[in-house]
Amino acid sequence: MVTSTLFIGGDEGQWRVDTIRAIRGADLAIASHLEVTSGNDAFTRPLSVWRLRGVTSSLRYTNKYERDRLQAIQSSLDRSDAFCAALIPIKKSDVWWSLAQDERRAIVEEQSSHFQIGMEYLPAVARQLYHSRDLGESFDFLTWFEFPEESAPQFDELLKRLRMTEEWRYVEREVEVRLTRASSKKKHANWEKA
Amino acid sequence: MVTSTLFIGGDEGQWRVDTIRAIRGADLAIASHLEVTSGNDAFTRPLSVWRLRGVTSSLRYTNKYERDRLQAIQSSLDRSDAFCAALIPIKKSDVWWSLAQDERRAIVEEQSSHFQIGMEYLPAVARQLYHSRDLGESFDFLTWFEFPEESAPQFDELLKRLRMTEEWRYVEREVEVRLTRASSKKKHANWEKA
Repeated sequence: MVTSTLFIGGDEGQWRVDTIRAIRGADLAIASHLEVTSGNDAFTRPLSVWRLRGVTSSLRYTNKYERDRLQAIQSSLDRSDAFCAALIPIKKSDVWWSLAQDERRAIVEEQSSHFQIGMEYLPAVARQLYHSRDLGESFDFLTWFEFPEESAPQFDELLKRLRMTEEWRYVEREVEVRLTRASSKKKHANWEKA
Repeated sequence: MVTSTLFIGGDEGQWRVDTIRAIRGADLAIASHLEVTSGNDAFTRPLSVWRLRGVTSSLRYTNKYERDRLQAIQSSLDRSDAFCAALIPIKKSDVWWSLAQDERRAIVEEQSSHFQIGMEYLPAVARQLYHSRDLGESFDFLTWFEFPEESAPQFDELLKRLRMTEEWRYVEREVEVRLTRASSKKKHANWEKA
């Protein structure tokens, strides 16, 4: 059974929020921390500003050749040197969702080189895509990235290139949440405050 | 925003249950009626035996050529002459879900002719696919069919052909619920009973 992941913006969590910035459409409210947790833990944390939910699900566009290349080169989440993270929730337009599978694939890859561009930033930038649309959430995807501080300029370049693609013309709402791993000391301080 | 559809097996509903039969894996419990409703109405009906939830979502394998052919020939649900229906919840294996998009598409269409077979039974058999896996449901899909009584033998043939395909080797659980539209008189009788 598929388990959902919750991204909870509030006053505690493993990640400290550095900035929240609307790229397109409405912003997300300000929160000092982000907690990432599995869906079942949801109800134990009442003090949240916003909650976003997604599932890792199956691959929607990636073909076997691409998947094999990705698996060979990509790095895992939770690397000890990856102190920076970004949560980028995205909503695409109704026009996008009314397209057939091959039309969407053509825009994602043949026209926008989404996979090719992402590959260039591996293994420095680890990432995970969460699907939200079918869950009735306000965003369609939650994209999650982790990288060492020295790779931050590369990550900015990755975002800039993706946002110039044909695929991004179908993006109706996008928010960029930049994060730093909260030290255990900070986490402890939060617990004392609570 | 995507709205989910609920299929509620219980003692009332627009459809009378004729048979419930496990094709593979565990059965569903016996219920006399099926109610089909949008997700938001869920909490007003406490007396149910089972509840299955799905979303219509976007097309996962169908390409533009196929979609256009489908739209030209398919019939809509809720036709006045379609007194028969079938709800067939399906769960596929973990191996299936670990395949890349092009591998799954190749099995569905190139190897199993799923779309081609389905087309042969249009417009007699109207159908709608609901996705459930990402919702954390026990089935991956809920397939729904409506057809006039005289098309029942054709519908049986359609099921038989699909179940012999390569794609069906990945089906781990399948239940077939056969239904007849409950007349307004019957519905009234149910309300009086309640």
